[in-house]
Amino acid sequence: MNHHDHPEVPLAGHDLPASGAWVFGDPAGNRQFVDVTVNRPFTLEGGGTLGAVTMAYETWGTLDADASNAVLVCHALTGDSHAAGKVGPGHRTPGWWDDIIGPGRGIDTDHWFVVCINVLGGCQGSTGPSSIDPEAGTRYASRFGVVTVRDVVRAQRSVADHLGIDVWASVVGGSMGGMTALEWAVMFPDRVRSLATLSSCAASSALQIAWSAVQRRAIAFDPAWAGGDYYDASDGAGPHRGLGLAREMAQITYRTGDVFGSRFDRAAVDPMDNGLSMWQRFDVEGYLDHHGTKLVRRFDANSYLVLTKAMDLHDVARGRGGMAAALARVQARCLVAAVDSDTLYPPIQQRQLADGLIAGGARVDHVVINSSHGHDGFLLEPEQVGAALTALLEEVGNDD
Amino acid sequence: MNHHDHPEVPLAGHDLPASGAWVFGDPAGNRQFVDVTVNRPFTLEGGGTLGAVTMAYETWGTLDADASNAVLVCHALTGDSHAAGKVGPGHRTPGWWDDIIGPGRGIDTDHWFVVCINVLGGCQGSTGPSSIDPEAGTRYASRFGVVTVRDVVRAQRSVADHLGIDVWASVVGGSMGGMTALEWAVMFPDRVRSLATLSSCAASSALQIAWSAVQRRAIAFDPAWAGGDYYDASDGAGPHRGLGLAREMAQITYRTGDVFGSRFDRAAVDPMDNGLSMWQRFDVEGYLDHHGTKLVRRFDANSYLVLTKAMDLHDVARGRGGMAAALARVQARCLVAAVDSDTLYPPIQQRQLADGLIAGGARVDHVVINSSHGHDGFLLEPEQVGAALTALLEEVGNDD
Repeated sequence: MNHHDHPEVPLAGHDLPASGAWVFGDPAGNRQFVDVTVNRPFTLEGGGTLGAVTMAYETWGTLDADASNAVLVCHALTGDSHAAGKVGPGHRTPGWWDDIIGPGRGIDTDHWFVVCINVLGGCQGSTGPSSIDPEAGTRYASRFGVVTVRDVVRAQRSVADHLGIDVWASVVGGSMGGMTALEWAVMFPDRVRSLATLSSCAASSALQIAWSAVQRRAIAFDPAWAGGDYYDASDGAGPHRGLGLAREMAQITYRTGDVFGSRFDRAAVDPMDNGLSMWQRFDVEGYLDHHGTKLVRRFDANSYLVLTKAMDLHDVARGRGGMAAALARVQARCLVAAVDSDTLYPPIQQRQLADGLIAGGARVDHVVINSSHGHDGFLLEPEQVGAALTALLEEVGNDD
Repeated sequence: MNHHDHPEVPLAGHDLPASGAWVFGDPAGNRQFVDVTVNRPFTLEGGGTLGAVTMAYETWGTLDADASNAVLVCHALTGDSHAAGKVGPGHRTPGWWDDIIGPGRGIDTDHWFVVCINVLGGCQGSTGPSSIDPEAGTRYASRFGVVTVRDVVRAQRSVADHLGIDVWASVVGGSMGGMTALEWAVMFPDRVRSLATLSSCAASSALQIAWSAVQRRAIAFDPAWAGGDYYDASDGAGPHRGLGLAREMAQITYRTGDVFGSRFDRAAVDPMDNGLSMWQRFDVEGYLDHHGTKLVRRFDANSYLVLTKAMDLHDVARGRGGMAAALARVQARCLVAAVDSDTLYPPIQQRQLADGLIAGGARVDHVVINSSHGHDGFLLEPEQVGAALTALLEEVGNDD
């Protein structure tokens, strides 16, 4: 590449395969499926219905006879049901919390039966915008409605019913997963014995909404988004640039300047000794490109829109007579964990959530994880996170 | 607008006039112009030359007989030469530092002769990508080279020569303006008696580069950018969406979650009581739209690319035997000011810069401005900033 004559803009996703882009996840993996719309359509909180909703989930460990050892792990924005497990047939990547879930780990699968369910609106097996609408015979695409975290929880409740789990020993999650876990404990207090919410909040902040909004616009401004109806493009094209750019922005907010500084500083991918050009990249830009391209290969842009909107709409106070009344519904023993360097979900949010739960009568362990990694600390500090979860689960076990 | 049937993506700049978009600034204002390429073309540090370079500047106050009272004010990324003055004929907006510069203000124009020069690569009167290349007879557009802060300073030196100013009493600036001020003191130590750098740094960090890079991509991914050659579009179209989105991102990084939280919280522009849809906006989204659209009306996307790249390339150590050696060149009395809530240019950068200047033998006042506003604190805290500048200028005056 001659930088000087033909500057080339680095494009996340520019080398994607031209077709087959709309098969996400690993159908050959360990996932199981359950239809949660056997007797009725699924009514969305924000209006509209879905005629058929399938939930994809995975499990680890063994459910005991009285179904008292079930732990629900809730994934974050771009996560999926594959929370644990190594790379292998049907799994191109290890589980996103494989350091936390397994024999002898923070959530010990020798003792606990772990369930992880892909969220409604996602693209990894559960019904989302890229799913076929049975009434129309085509993908939902732009016809898919707005989903809320409460919708996500109601769809997961059907999976619990299907598995015969009346009460979760614990519902656990980070970021969007923490929102999901908290809504579980507020919506169904008698079905949640303990709750762990990490790097999350009781209601999304204006800053979180701002970042989500600019990411959604990056997708919508990509002409290949086509108003959401891009699945039928004969060449498999889609809003790869927009989704990649959204991920690049998000990736910056998930980490910290300190880590970027020590890891990349001002090192350059493209040599600059023989002159400067506009699209020469520093190492940190190459890192962002990598993350953008990686997400585009595995995630659907419409699901990104739906789930970031669900996060923006997250507010446990909505329609419940205020935040104090909402949090007073919680009967679960609680772990509220923050990461000290998280600027996207700053520790003050978790402190306020913990205080609100305590004021409502809950027993709360409030933990601040020491990490330079920022928001992603809940994924990148398995020792501290695992220890906090183990402590919570031991308390629940002792209650038996 | 019916949100449910026809979701509309809010588009920064969507209501722009269809033509005349490439006239920036106010030719009828107080600006003056000087040709800095009378005897030779302007050679860029990164390679290439510009055949004709014009600099636009404004002045306030009166230059004294021995030209000893001149203060150069350097503007930030999207600023211009109109640093002071009210709205009036030829000026649609007040000066960007009008609270700081004027009679009896932090930089007292009853005493000081203040100069502000639009940067090389900009779009407010000085030569930039939207200027006519005299050799080709058309706008530079994609042919405009990469500009560095050192190029900016060399072009400004010609203005100083033109005005008969051998030595600046002070060179002052925030953010990119602080980079410019620092380079002045390093490149021409005997022409700078004092230096004030606010919310700035000795070298751009990986985090700053990351944010600049995603903003540049937002512009380049806009099909209307057309590789930079959009000026000749018959309908005046340009990368308005991309530039607006870049500005929205930037605006978030310039402020703080605390201020967004207290100002917007979760209030909504679009009512959500009768159902939810994807493009309903919270107040913070309306605020971002406002800032995106406002910038698109007054700024050129190619200048945005050139100047953010100049900021990314800012590193006073480059080619000077390391940072310590570079900072040891400074002979000026220094003010280094940080804003305590600035997450984009965190106070540690200014602390390190101050320490480096002190180690190199400079006399340095290091000030931390207390503000909730974040990076933009250097614009939004005129009392504290003005007081610090007054103190610096009094020290310089006492040296006379």
